[in-house]
Amino acid sequence: MQLKRVVLERLMRYHRFLSQTTKIKPIQTITSAQIAEALDIDPTQVRKDFGAIGLMGIGRVGYQVEDVCCAIRQVMGFDHENAAVLIGVGQLGGALLTYPGFEKYGLMIEAVFDSDPAKVGRRKAGYTIRSTRTLKQYIRNYNIRLAILCTPVEVSQTLTDRLTSTGIKAIWNFTPTSLNVPADVLVRNEHISLGLSEIAYHLK
Amino acid sequence: MQLKRVVLERLMRYHRFLSQTTKIKPIQTITSAQIAEALDIDPTQVRKDFGAIGLMGIGRVGYQVEDVCCAIRQVMGFDHENAAVLIGVGQLGGALLTYPGFEKYGLMIEAVFDSDPAKVGRRKAGYTIRSTRTLKQYIRNYNIRLAILCTPVEVSQTLTDRLTSTGIKAIWNFTPTSLNVPADVLVRNEHISLGLSEIAYHLK
Repeated sequence: MQLKRVVLERLMRYHRFLSQTTKIKPIQTITSAQIAEALDIDPTQVRKDFGAIGLMGIGRVGYQVEDVCCAIRQVMGFDHENAAVLIGVGQLGGALLTYPGFEKYGLMIEAVFDSDPAKVGRRKAGYTIRSTRTLKQYIRNYNIRLAILCTPVEVSQTLTDRLTSTGIKAIWNFTPTSLNVPADVLVRNEHISLGLSEIAYHLK
Repeated sequence: MQLKRVVLERLMRYHRFLSQTTKIKPIQTITSAQIAEALDIDPTQVRKDFGAIGLMGIGRVGYQVEDVCCAIRQVMGFDHENAAVLIGVGQLGGALLTYPGFEKYGLMIEAVFDSDPAKVGRRKAGYTIRSTRTLKQYIRNYNIRLAILCTPVEVSQTLTDRLTSTGIKAIWNFTPTSLNVPADVLVRNEHISLGLSEIAYHLK
């Protein structure tokens, strides 16, 4: 089963909504209609998404909240641990290092790298910044498959080539540019400009 | 004409691709097939999207690159200036303040706010940090319609209520939570967890 990105994004919304709701008020069960109303999604869509990951609701009772959260975590792979390297310890890279929610999704940042000799060796959010010259070696030694890219645009493609040739299978791209990668490598772009475009369009 | 978010996102991809391509090598015209191949989109889709914003290609010549970029900018509203306030000058807020590409999309951050008395009055990226107590007044005085939210989760809904009651029409939400807003207010969520979920799923 290969779920599409739009389905994954909806599953994430269900998961976030249920986690937040149960934190405020513990509930055992919830209906597709309740979820649908809270998230402004069609109830049929909710049932279809749940069905696709093997969840069946019962009549008016609905779904066991815990079962739903559990199934989503399993499908998404949040219970697998993904070791990652972060490259580029500027302001954004630094902000990501202190983000408290990554473990929840199985992400473990193992080491951080920068090419700036003035930064190498310094501490940041509990990490000692390493030189990008040692990047390849590190990725091979620790069998890292995920890289978080927060470098300037000018070096992002060169670094990407180096990363993919060393065995990286997913790049979380925070640089505002597109990256060319082999077919088996996933690039997830966090292009801030997409958000901006939606806002500009709405305010027009 | 009301374009859907998926269409807006594709238009942004065309715009980014064409801007980057012409920066490397100046070209006058481009075909839908060339764009389609570079971005891994169906050529029919490209022609349909361009048609929707009034662009017509000519036979094998294709489209004038400048016309395409211009039409996209106009449709998206990038040539309008949107004055914004940024709230929450932590690491992420600080990173956004130094992001160099906002003017390109018409976004002007006019003032920055924080509730921490230790931060108020200090300078950051050329801005003097103001107290959130003066937020309402500022928004009213300068008729601000866009707020960038980078605060801790605990205060985001309270702040959102204050913002929307003062005339804010769009919130760019960098806090990892959902916000309740009136129907005429747009919230664009930059939920880092969505990206993470796609990556975790791919690496599973």
